[in-house]
Amino acid sequence: MSRRIKGRPARSIVPPFNPTVEAGAPPGAAIYLGDREPADAAVSLIQYGPDDATFATPSCAEEILAMLEEDRVNWINVNGFGDLDMVKTLCGYLRVDPLSIEDVLNTSHRPKVEDFGRYVLVIAKMIRNLPDGSIEYEQVSLILARNVVVTFQEQPGDCFGPIRERIRAGTGKLRKRGASYLAYGLLDIIVDNYFSVLEGLGSRLEEAEQFVDAAGTDPAFMGNLQRTKTELSRMRRIVWPVRETVTALQRLESDLIEEGLEPFLRDLHDNVVQALEALETYRESAASIRDVYNSSVSNRMNEIMKVLTIISTLFIPLTFIAGVYGMNFVHMPELDQRWAYPAVWGLMAAIALGMLVFFKRKRWF
Amino acid sequence: MSRRIKGRPARSIVPPFNPTVEAGAPPGAAIYLGDREPADAAVSLIQYGPDDATFATPSCAEEILAMLEEDRVNWINVNGFGDLDMVKTLCGYLRVDPLSIEDVLNTSHRPKVEDFGRYVLVIAKMIRNLPDGSIEYEQVSLILARNVVVTFQEQPGDCFGPIRERIRAGTGKLRKRGASYLAYGLLDIIVDNYFSVLEGLGSRLEEAEQFVDAAGTDPAFMGNLQRTKTELSRMRRIVWPVRETVTALQRLESDLIEEGLEPFLRDLHDNVVQALEALETYRESAASIRDVYNSSVSNRMNEIMKVLTIISTLFIPLTFIAGVYGMNFVHMPELDQRWAYPAVWGLMAAIALGMLVFFKRKRWF
Amino acid sequence: MSRRIKGRPARSIVPPFNPTVEAGAPPGAAIYLGDREPADAAVSLIQYGPDDATFATPSCAEEILAMLEEDRVNWINVNGFGDLDMVKTLCGYLRVDPLSIEDVLNTSHRPKVEDFGRYVLVIAKMIRNLPDGSIEYEQVSLILARNVVVTFQEQPGDCFGPIRERIRAGTGKLRKRGASYLAYGLLDIIVDNYFSVLEGLGSRLEEAEQFVDAAGTDPAFMGNLQRTKTELSRMRRIVWPVRETVTALQRLESDLIEEGLEPFLRDLHDNVVQALEALETYRESAASIRDVYNSSVSNRMNEIMKVLTIISTLFIPLTFIAGVYGMNFVHMPELDQRWAYPAVWGLMAAIALGMLVFFKRKRWF
Amino acid sequence: MSRRIKGRPARSIVPPFNPTVEAGAPPGAAIYLGDREPADAAVSLIQYGPDDATFATPSCAEEILAMLEEDRVNWINVNGFGDLDMVKTLCGYLRVDPLSIEDVLNTSHRPKVEDFGRYVLVIAKMIRNLPDGSIEYEQVSLILARNVVVTFQEQPGDCFGPIRERIRAGTGKLRKRGASYLAYGLLDIIVDNYFSVLEGLGSRLEEAEQFVDAAGTDPAFMGNLQRTKTELSRMRRIVWPVRETVTALQRLESDLIEEGLEPFLRDLHDNVVQALEALETYRESAASIRDVYNSSVSNRMNEIMKVLTIISTLFIPLTFIAGVYGMNFVHMPELDQRWAYPAVWGLMAAIALGMLVFFKRKRWF
Amino acid sequence: MSRRIKGRPARSIVPPFNPTVEAGAPPGAAIYLGDREPADAAVSLIQYGPDDATFATPSCAEEILAMLEEDRVNWINVNGFGDLDMVKTLCGYLRVDPLSIEDVLNTSHRPKVEDFGRYVLVIAKMIRNLPDGSIEYEQVSLILARNVVVTFQEQPGDCFGPIRERIRAGTGKLRKRGASYLAYGLLDIIVDNYFSVLEGLGSRLEEAEQFVDAAGTDPAFMGNLQRTKTELSRMRRIVWPVRETVTALQRLESDLIEEGLEPFLRDLHDNVVQALEALETYRESAASIRDVYNSSVSNRMNEIMKVLTIISTLFIPLTFIAGVYGMNFVHMPELDQRWAYPAVWGLMAAIALGMLVFFKRKRWF
Repeated sequence: MSRRIKGRPARSIVPPFNPTVEAGAPPGAAIYLGDREPADAAVSLIQYGPDDATFATPSCAEEILAMLEEDRVNWINVNGFGDLDMVKTLCGYLRVDPLSIEDVLNTSHRPKVEDFGRYVLVIAKMIRNLPDGSIEYEQVSLILARNVVVTFQEQPGDCFGPIRERIRAGTGKLRKRGASYLAYGLLDIIVDNYFSVLEGLGSRLEEAEQFVDAAGTDPAFMGNLQRTKTELSRMRRIVWPVRETVTALQRLESDLIEEGLEPFLRDLHDNVVQALEALETYRESAASIRDVYNSSVSNRMNEIMKVLTIISTLFIPLTFIAGVYGMNFVHMPELDQRWAYPAVWGLMAAIALGMLVFFKRKRWF
Repeated sequence: MSRRIKGRPARSIVPPFNPTVEAGAPPGAAIYLGDREPADAAVSLIQYGPDDATFATPSCAEEILAMLEEDRVNWINVNGFGDLDMVKTLCGYLRVDPLSIEDVLNTSHRPKVEDFGRYVLVIAKMIRNLPDGSIEYEQVSLILARNVVVTFQEQPGDCFGPIRERIRAGTGKLRKRGASYLAYGLLDIIVDNYFSVLEGLGSRLEEAEQFVDAAGTDPAFMGNLQRTKTELSRMRRIVWPVRETVTALQRLESDLIEEGLEPFLRDLHDNVVQALEALETYRESAASIRDVYNSSVSNRMNEIMKVLTIISTLFIPLTFIAGVYGMNFVHMPELDQRWAYPAVWGLMAAIALGMLVFFKRKRWF
Repeated sequence: MSRRIKGRPARSIVPPFNPTVEAGAPPGAAIYLGDREPADAAVSLIQYGPDDATFATPSCAEEILAMLEEDRVNWINVNGFGDLDMVKTLCGYLRVDPLSIEDVLNTSHRPKVEDFGRYVLVIAKMIRNLPDGSIEYEQVSLILARNVVVTFQEQPGDCFGPIRERIRAGTGKLRKRGASYLAYGLLDIIVDNYFSVLEGLGSRLEEAEQFVDAAGTDPAFMGNLQRTKTELSRMRRIVWPVRETVTALQRLESDLIEEGLEPFLRDLHDNVVQALEALETYRESAASIRDVYNSSVSNRMNEIMKVLTIISTLFIPLTFIAGVYGMNFVHMPELDQRWAYPAVWGLMAAIALGMLVFFKRKRWF
Repeated sequence: MSRRIKGRPARSIVPPFNPTVEAGAPPGAAIYLGDREPADAAVSLIQYGPDDATFATPSCAEEILAMLEEDRVNWINVNGFGDLDMVKTLCGYLRVDPLSIEDVLNTSHRPKVEDFGRYVLVIAKMIRNLPDGSIEYEQVSLILARNVVVTFQEQPGDCFGPIRERIRAGTGKLRKRGASYLAYGLLDIIVDNYFSVLEGLGSRLEEAEQFVDAAGTDPAFMGNLQRTKTELSRMRRIVWPVRETVTALQRLESDLIEEGLEPFLRDLHDNVVQALEALETYRESAASIRDVYNSSVSNRMNEIMKVLTIISTLFIPLTFIAGVYGMNFVHMPELDQRWAYPAVWGLMAAIALGMLVFFKRKRWF
Repeated sequence: MSRRIKGRPARSIVPPFNPTVEAGAPPGAAIYLGDREPADAAVSLIQYGPDDATFATPSCAEEILAMLEEDRVNWINVNGFGDLDMVKTLCGYLRVDPLSIEDVLNTSHRPKVEDFGRYVLVIAKMIRNLPDGSIEYEQVSLILARNVVVTFQEQPGDCFGPIRERIRAGTGKLRKRGASYLAYGLLDIIVDNYFSVLEGLGSRLEEAEQFVDAAGTDPAFMGNLQRTKTELSRMRRIVWPVRETVTALQRLESDLIEEGLEPFLRDLHDNVVQALEALETYRESAASIRDVYNSSVSNRMNEIMKVLTIISTLFIPLTFIAGVYGMNFVHMPELDQRWAYPAVWGLMAAIALGMLVFFKRKRWF
């Protein structure tokens, strides 16, 4: 029941692949399977209704449960799995299935939606550009229950800032709607972030294109290009099941999904499809750039060969002639003639000229 | 809810990708998301029946609403989204859903059809050759209601001229039929314009082919070819959902679609399919031209190498012989012979001839 | 409603693409859209029953209509669309829909079948080798009504000769069966002709293979190969919808289709599938030949380089030695020795031999 | 109704394609369409029950019909179509449809199953290695009726030997079961033979791989590899419809199929799928070997260039120095010095050493 | 009924293909078809309930049957098919169909699930890294009956150690659940082992990438890379039907499958899908590495050519000049001038400098 394709940033053509548990660990055990050190759990609780919003950072599960209010939307966000007991207490309160807990803890799960009646489990992937230029994949698990949304992240730091801001400020529809709208909003912002990652990959490709257009050569170029392509493939493999997840959400017949959410989910679906199309386009672009680079390398080769050939074929015959008249035969009648030396120069010039005309005709320069 | 793959003309292998809003903008807000400056709204109202047609350019939404006539077809065309209030007033009159308004304003939406009962929303893409040789993608949104067609364009300038002319002149069936036939006519002319864009791309490929056939070489050639290919891919990604849109239109069970429109929609569908087939064919052609170009570059290389090899292998042995008799040894018996110098010439001629025969046999020239 | 991918013979990698009407022509107008000059209409009427057959070439539509017999099969063949009135009169008699007439006149329509109850419209494509080696695509439209088959061709000259012969001679089942069997027979012979075109393309590929096997080199080779490949792609795009057309015919529930025709249509379907498979095979063959050609070019290159390298590395060191003893230093003790000159020759021979052994070991010759 | 992709052994990249009848032959005529001379009909009749088996070679159809026994399984095998009358008489007795007879005679038919109620027609393809290394495709048509199996082969010689042996010896279940089990057994052995053909193709590929691994070069190599690939493609096109045929057999609801045959047919289906998978694998292998060969050719090229470059760059500067001191200027102070000649040798050695260090650093040798 | 794609480790691009029986062996015969010598049967019997577990190694089938307990889970593991009688006795007790026995014995069967009511047959493939670096494919057949699980392996040595350990130690849910949970656990651990094999292949690819990044060249590199790719393809062909098998298990409506197993099977399915995705990713990586390698080889070639060209074009003109003044003409006015020799040196230096500037401008160094 262990999963092994981890979310580490790929910096090589071969994506990372590191099992963190021994094959054969008993299934169903609540073990943290992520490949990052479990960060200190930093729990936050945001509660809001149409009129106001409260932000709190309770220190334990019991404190959260005591604070939950039935008539407002309660968003519990858990960063990191350092405090497994808290995760279990929270899930216990919401009567979450042990298998769901395991799915939440297994941070290399494929994106999916599962409807358990009293709650809906959504597993999604946050993709973010890190400051050092690498791309981070982080699993976000979301449990949507009656008036409660619980989100689990692998570590602190997320892309939910604008949502928190909208809750605080009360702009838009967010505060006026229910928990499922919050869940939609979180997914929407996750997908929105795909586009900024895509933009980063796109500008890497643009740089590559400009490099190639400037006829640059770099032994590391192709490796970098292929690494970008690998990143695109990898991201596609993550976003593809996200698309399926959103489709499944659209088809979900659960009374946890509030009325009037369909157009928003349809819109979310359109967004994911656009991200996939952009990924596809970029993969094609990478292949095109490879072709152009190869063609540019060939062109350079041709040019080098031309220079060598022109110089060689120009001087080799002349050197031969000079060699002939450098021979030490006693009887070489030409050597004694007054006109011979200038005549040889003339011959050489004629040959050189002939060669140049030949190359000109072949349009070599 | 923001969309990011913009409609700017692609001039590079990596298609443009510029989000114009911050990720996380609240969904559902009526904000103009296009990447062009909102042009001054230029509204036009065309009203016609079987017998006559009226053209007007009202200055505000109220003026338009006052002019609408129930027993004639009313075509309102809005260029640019500078005057959002007018858009909202118009849509309010037609009881258009806020989400539809947002779709209209978001000019990077995927083509689609949605039936809202009292109106049908069609989002399509106009593709046009600009005078500077680039290709412009512009979203056209069309709202078909009872006797009213509203079209929204991103900016002034469109391909609807022939339609206006036919309304003015009263030729064809257009004036005799209803609003859905007008909507069909507008979509038909949009698709017709794909073919002139395709023609332009086709002639770019034809030029490339002629260049390659003339064994031309140009370091920028491959880059240009791949850019044309990127343009083809990009257009395919736009036309593909247009095909789905037309299929959806054909299946639409709405009483806004007048009787007898099916064969026209089927015809429209055939047209889009033909455009897609042409795109596919051109993509294959681009790949073929690339192969021919690469082969041509190889051929050139071979030819250069042949020239170098022939000249080098012809003269290097001769130069060696000349070198031998240029040595200053005191005891070189050949040097004193009268026949030696002509004999060396003879030897050299023999070697050169032998080489030429060798090359001739290898069919190197 | 205009269609633009014309049926001109493709002689380049980029298939032809010439709109013959202005985009925006009113739909539904009976305008001839083919890209050939409308040939003079040459109408022929063939009438037959089990016992006899009559051949006539009436001069006008009225004459034809007067000659039609209810109890025999009437096959009206129209070559070219020079006389549009006649086409309209004929179609009027058969109560053909205006949209069908338009489809017939639009000679770049995709193959299709449409059942209008009182008649069935089949649009197919005749593909023929022209004497000059090019391939001609011609649209054949076929209207099957009660006892009447009308065929429309773009221009005189077709592949229906054997059918006419079988009607005249009364061999086979043709004369004993009804109009739908005639329609089947015509389609069958159209598909049969695909095979002779395929044969021509196949022998082009065989020639290419033989050329490559003989290690031939020709700068134009790759271009020609790709042109053949383009022709194959183009034909595939034509034959593919023909397959769909035959499938649709098989599924047609029309009482115009006589009983017992199913096995013949199934057979026709098998034929089209075989043609498609042959096209697919040939496309693969073309790619294989390209690979072999590229490999052959590489081999040649390697051989040229080997010759250059052997000759150069053989003589360059020797030339150096000769050069050394051509130096004019006053104090060069070797120069005065009697044995020096033969010793230098020995040294040179040793070096040359060493080189040859080295090349032999590397199996360069 | 003629079919044209013949079963001749493919020895070239372009598979054979020879129509043997004029396009336009009347459909439904019982003409032998194979591309081999109709061999003399060699008919055999094998009759068996649980207890015994009789082998006979009757000379005419009437003799066969007289010998048929209702309570035993009768297997009539017909080799070649030299005696069409006999074929017709046999089929007439079994009330075989004329179209089926035509399918049997047309030896380039696609594999298929057709249920005519009173009999089932199966068309399959026997694929065999010929002693000369080529691969023979032969159509086997099988008519399964009540207690009777008729097999038609194009010519004498088949792979049914083991079946005959099992009938003769009475081993296995064969003699205890009915006609449909015999039909299954024949198909099973046909499919079994695919594997020996596959094995042959596999060892061709293995040889190719070993050749490439030994860095062998042969201008004909790529052509041969592609021919093997063509053979694989061709075989796949034959085996693919065989798979469909077996699937159709499994779904057949005919009382001619005895009870308990399903697991055997499922097994047969698995076999065909495995053959297809092997074909797919081999096609991939061929592409891989091509890549390795191309890489090997490039490596060779690089090595040749290295040798040339090392020798040239080593001696060209030295030759220049020698040339300098071979000049005949009156005033060249170096020439008179005692130390000059050894100094020049020292300079040359230094340059050569420097070059060698340079190449060593670049790891050229 | 013989199957031929054997499970031997692939060490070449062309996967192994060795029929071990003559084509035409009678179907349904219980013959061992694996390609390993049948190892001595080593049977083990593990019996467990919630409270305790017994391990035994009975020596014959009768002993096993005598030991079976109805109220505990009995897991019989058979290593190797040396003792066919025992296999038959065991299967006889469980009333296993002869065709199932044959499937078990045929060790090159495709993975599948078959429900026979009283038992379920699952055929799966164990894939393991051998110590010598090769990959071993071994068929594991599993018969799930009421309280009994029988597993058949081709030879001793498996990956079930952790399962046995969990039974012994009583950790996890294993001991508390029934036979179908054991079957699930065995399949789960088989799939888990795919990941360690994948990891091994992944590190092979990583090594290849590092080699290429270090610009290494090795004539055997491409062959090894393609062999890894072949291994990936081969594994994919094995894992793909395993996925189908698990899907079939999920859909199985058998009362042998205990309640509450669905989430575990779904999890197993997710695992297989992840393995397939990793395989797909690695295949892409292999192609990318090939591209980078080819590019690296081209770069090297370019560099070699550059060195050759720079040295040649630098010295060839100088050598020519030296040659000119080595000529022995009597009348060469320059030779007598005092300034001539230094002037020639100056000229040479100027030419060399010019060349260097030219190369610098072309950015050749």
